[in-house]
Parts: sequence; structure tokens; C-alpha cells
Amino acid sequence: MTRTHPVIGLEKAALARWCSGDPSGFLELSAPDVTYFDPFLPARLDGLEKLTAYYGGIRGKISAPRYEMIDPHVTEIGDAAILTFRFVSFGGSEGAEMRWNCTEVYRREGEDWRIVQTHWSLTGGS
Amino acid sequence: MTRTHPVIGLEKAALARWCSGDPSGFLELSAPDVTYFDPFLPARLDGLEKLTAYYGGIRGKISAPRYEMIDPHVTEIGDAAILTFRFVSFGGSEGAEMRWNCTEVYRREGEDWRIVQTHWSLTGGS
Repeated sequence: MTRTHPVIGLEKAALARWCSGDPSGFLELSAPDVTYFDPFLPARLDGLEKLTAYYGGIRGKISAPRYEMIDPHVTEIGDAAILTFRFVSFGGSEGAEMRWNCTEVYRREGEDWRIVQTHWSLTGGS
Repeated sequence: MTRTHPVIGLEKAALARWCSGDPSGFLELSAPDVTYFDPFLPARLDGLEKLTAYYGGIRGKISAPRYEMIDPHVTEIGDAAILTFRFVSFGGSEGAEMRWNCTEVYRREGEDWRIVQTHWSLTGGS
């Protein structure tokens, strides 16, 4: 299921926009009740309104000419799809190389999938 | 739902054992197909067998005399429960204070809940 799961395509499309400075791909995918962690914030963000405000502050400031989604894996539980992967970006706004762990929990809503939980963190141990 | 959701009690019990050096609380909760991220590993661990081997190497080496689960939140999607919280430990084996973000995705299996995705990372931005 993992290799062809639709949330992988959705995530890749949002990442492509993100890496060209546009966070709206993720905002359009996220549900109103999304919860969000990243390593730059002192606490979880709760709700799309707060995430929209946060991403508004970095719009156009992020770029990564080269990036790679590594080893995506999906666990489906009914209308939930839990996507995990690593992500590496090269030569972008954040320096030579950034290595990330990511968890995205998607919820099926009719024909659509919406993100209800995002967790970005820095990969260590290398 | 969040305040009384059963996975919060399960997580707290496993954390109490963890903070006294016993990782088996989490191993007993985790499903065979669990996936796992933490900030010390260079990649995701896939499967309970690998997680068991990894935790075996730190058994008895972790302690935290004081700790706190902060702001637990649960999103339920059918038989999935997505628990997010921050966690602070004080005065333990890892130094004066450690601050964590955590995502735990639980799957309902009959009367039980099993962890299928764990993501620990360090809280930043403070």
C-alpha cells in the first residue's frame, strides 16, 4: 500500500511548493483542527489559523533547489493514514544540507485527505 | 475527549516506567508494525523487533526523578487516536532539563490500544 498511497503524492506536491517558497500547499492540505510541531517552536501550534499565521511569516523566505523524500511509509487505520519519511534538502535557504524526520497524519474526508498532525524534527545520530 | 482519553493514561504509565529506567512499558504498548523516530537515530526504526533491540541497549540507563507531560491532546479518527504532548524531564540521566515534543499514534485493537507510530524530538525555540 505504501508505494502507491495517495497521501505520498499529496505530500510530494506540497513539498515541491514549500521548497520554492510557497507554504500554501501545506496550508491547503491541513484541516482546521491540525496540530503542528517543528523544531523552531517552543510549543505545539493548535489549529489552521495559527499555522497560517506562522507560515505567513516565512512565505518566500524558504528555498531548496534540491531535496529528497526518503523511504516514505504509510500505515492506514480506517480513514486515517499515517505517513512517515525522512527529508533531505540541499543548497537551500537553510544551509548546505538539512536532514529531517517527518510524521504526517492524514484524515480521509470524502474524496480528500487532510493533514491533522504534522511533526517535523531534525534527524540526529549521523 | 482529550482530557479523559484512555491513551493518555496508557502513555503516562509507560512514561513512569521509562523514567525509572524501564522501557518495557512502551514495548508492551507498541504494535508489531510500529514505526519510530527519535533525535538520536540516523533513520526511522521499523518494527517492534528493531525497537526492542534498540531499547534493550538503554535499559536501566535512563532516569528522571521529576517529569511532566504538558498539554496532551488527542484527535480520534475511527480506531486511530493521535496523541500529541510536550514532555519535560528534570534532573535525570540526560542532564538538568530536557524538553521534548512527542507524537504517538495509537490503534484500537479490540479492548486494547497499540502504538503504531512514535515520534520524539527536541523542543526548540525557547
